Amino acid sequence: MNLQPDQRMGRNAMLLALSSEEEAALYLEQLNQQGFTYCQGKTGSMETHKVVAAIETAAKRQGVISSEGYRETHALYHAIMEALHGVTRGQVLLGSVLRTVGLRFAVVRGKPYVEESEGEWIAIALYGTIGAPVKGSEHEAIGLGINHI
Amino acid sequence: MNLQPDQRMGRNAMLLALSSEEEAALYLEQLNQQGFTYCQGKTGSMETHKVVAAIETAAKRQGVISSEGYRETHALYHAIMEALHGVTRGQVLLGSVLRTVGLRFAVVRGKPYVEESEGEWIAIALYGTIGAPVKGSEHEAIGLGINHI
Amino acid sequence: MNLQPDQRMGRNAMLLALSSEEEAALYLEQLNQQGFTYCQGKTGSMETHKVVAAIETAAKRQGVISSEGYRETHALYHAIMEALHGVTRGQVLLGSVLRTVGLRFAVVRGKPYVEESEGEWIAIALYGTIGAPVKGSEHEAIGLGINHI
Amino acid sequence: MNLQPDQRMGRNAMLLALSSEEEAALYLEQLNQQGFTYCQGKTGSMETHKVVAAIETAAKRQGVISSEGYRETHALYHAIMEALHGVTRGQVLLGSVLRTVGLRFAVVRGKPYVEESEGEWIAIALYGTIGAPVKGSEHEAIGLGINHI
Amino acid sequence: MNLQPDQRMGRNAMLLALSSEEEAALYLEQLNQQGFTYCQGKTGSMETHKVVAAIETAAKRQGVISSEGYRETHALYHAIMEALHGVTRGQVLLGSVLRTVGLRFAVVRGKPYVEESEGEWIAIALYGTIGAPVKGSEHEAIGLGINHI
Amino acid sequence: MNLQPDQRMGRNAMLLALSSEEEAALYLEQLNQQGFTYCQGKTGSMETHKVVAAIETAAKRQGVISSEGYRETHALYHAIMEALHGVTRGQVLLGSVLRTVGLRFAVVRGKPYVEESEGEWIAIALYGTIGAPVKGSEHEAIGLGINHI
Repeated sequence: MNLQPDQRMGRNAMLLALSSEEEAALYLEQLNQQGFTYCQGKTGSMETHKVVAAIETAAKRQGVISSEGYRETHALYHAIMEALHGVTRGQVLLGSVLRTVGLRFAVVRGKPYVEESEGEWIAIALYGTIGAPVKGSEHEAIGLGINHI
Repeated sequence: MNLQPDQRMGRNAMLLALSSEEEAALYLEQLNQQGFTYCQGKTGSMETHKVVAAIETAAKRQGVISSEGYRETHALYHAIMEALHGVTRGQVLLGSVLRTVGLRFAVVRGKPYVEESEGEWIAIALYGTIGAPVKGSEHEAIGLGINHI
Repeated sequence: MNLQPDQRMGRNAMLLALSSEEEAALYLEQLNQQGFTYCQGKTGSMETHKVVAAIETAAKRQGVISSEGYRETHALYHAIMEALHGVTRGQVLLGSVLRTVGLRFAVVRGKPYVEESEGEWIAIALYGTIGAPVKGSEHEAIGLGINHI
Repeated sequence: MNLQPDQRMGRNAMLLALSSEEEAALYLEQLNQQGFTYCQGKTGSMETHKVVAAIETAAKRQGVISSEGYRETHALYHAIMEALHGVTRGQVLLGSVLRTVGLRFAVVRGKPYVEESEGEWIAIALYGTIGAPVKGSEHEAIGLGINHI
Repeated sequence: MNLQPDQRMGRNAMLLALSSEEEAALYLEQLNQQGFTYCQGKTGSMETHKVVAAIETAAKRQGVISSEGYRETHALYHAIMEALHGVTRGQVLLGSVLRTVGLRFAVVRGKPYVEESEGEWIAIALYGTIGAPVKGSEHEAIGLGINHI
Repeated sequence: MNLQPDQRMGRNAMLLALSSEEEAALYLEQLNQQGFTYCQGKTGSMETHKVVAAIETAAKRQGVISSEGYRETHALYHAIMEALHGVTRGQVLLGSVLRTVGLRFAVVRGKPYVEESEGEWIAIALYGTIGAPVKGSEHEAIGLGINHI
């Protein structure tokens, strides 16, 4: 793949989502050195739209995407939906099929390809649990969405 | 979550899939200490059934699931299909919609929950690229499937 | 195709949905001459069931389908769901994944095939925008559903 | 198939769901003789999560699955979701796409395979109607989900 | 439901598909008395289009639907696809995701509703096994599709 | 919507796909005046990947997207897949479920929004027929995909 040797942004976003706050320091330093911007956060809900909104709000507040205009929101939205396919595995439904998620998310933006003309891309990584709305009745779930921006 | 503190098997399987062979040593040692069995491999294809077969064959050859009978194959199959939802994000199709994957996979089996009665579970992690059947025209993709076994 | 030369009802329904009220006059005249019945309307919502209900209500009030019995409602319902697949492109979800639609719809009913025995069919065309629940953060969307009735 | 001659549990669960209470006696006797456990019930709703909850509650109250822990709930949940795919045929949505169901369900648990090592499996059968939220505007629907437990 | 007391055609089609040839006699007599037409058959394949073709061919050869024209073929096709959703439970894919089916099918056509104006409907019932392309590595699967014709 | 008054690119792409070659002249002139680039073509197949390839090849040969690099191919690919959801309405499958398409396509690229910062977008419109692989056993189908590029 033509991804730059150290700039696998999907992998970095996923490592960030998989890490505790202390562990994340290493990945964040790497992302800074490689010129990526990023944000992290947590969200838990039985309503998919709240998960989408939590990620969008974090990405806009922390300047990873522009809070003005539609273009970057469109790119981010589709990346979030793709990541949610990995978490939900078939039907992008949570509470309506009696399940809930608790997720850590990482959003990473930058240039993963060697060729400058490939421009900027965005990666959304999700890691957490999905399961019945009963504490402990859940297992891990993961999703990654990548889009040009 | 009631997962044992160090036994988040989905996270461990994903870290294994994300790691180079050298980096994997750390995660493999942790998996051994925690009593998990596992296998790793690579597969690339435009045909989904070859990806499924590659993972099944590896898991059986390396003793992660029984090569006899149906029960464990059934559990593994559904975990693979769930992981492929994360990679394909909507339609579990590769060559038929003109795309191909190159994936590293990790299969981890063991007891992630504190309660002994929760028994054994299996996790399949996929990491690699998906894209056009043209070198470089691809981006990263990730999937995780978890099932009781 | 065995559709009658001037009686491509899906195309006519879509042209109607794409047209301003003034522009629609031409297509409506053609539909009248060809013996089609039809109705038009607008609907906007974050709730899919309101879009379905708006089209059903219009088709019944304006006599395009019978307001009695189930048969014609069943044919219309499936045509609407098929048209919504074009608008939503994967998961027939709106507000639950934080998006909203503003749509013009056209329903056309009649005999598009040369052979009399092919009987009556119904076409639902949708045209409008889909996007975030923020003015301007949206792009166009289109769907067409066709069913025998 | 290696299913025991008289122990096609999916077929038995479906026959149970298709039967009136009087007719069911024959199938229940067969299930008892074969060592299966089971429960039956009715549920009707425009909300998918209520259908899921009704089946889960019945299966736990009547001891078909353990009401403690996650493992058996996980197996049952996926079997219910698979059965709902048969009922909904495409998108696992009810009221959000303006339709409702009235269903009889049967849950059967036991050992359908000749080989003892295949262990216990669970089958969920659904039979009833799906349609518009208007009396009589509905047709029959069926679903079956099977999982190892 | 407004279905005629003894004319639940989906239930009858499913009972037919679930029955051995000897057992089927009872249901066939009931169908004859109620004025339904029907056919039965078996099909097994890793290719979905062969399953579709087998059912279509049987329905046409045995006169359940017209072998001329498109209208009845369209009604049957959608009913088959709906039944296959129940069998495949998510993605209407067989060999491409390394699985195969062996199915008995029943096609029933007639008037299930009390009101004469509801006209004719068609039901497709599928019963058999789905699983890995290895003898015995399979479990039962069921699907039902119903459409106006 | 913030789309420029005359620059509804999805509508223009669809009108182009719906038009005969002679009729298309008007829409092409409008697209030229508005600074859009575009291409048109026809494709028919039972294999989805051939439809995808036909549109990609036309868009590259006629200079609507760059034939170098991945970024624009990625944007186009997702727009094509979204348009195919409208044509296939549920499962993006053709020959594997025994159906075939004959489609005219139009690809339009340019700036549909008033704000310069929204940049370039691409629209894919598909119009034609879908049906059994038997001449005349088909009805119309439509799809539209839109993406930022």
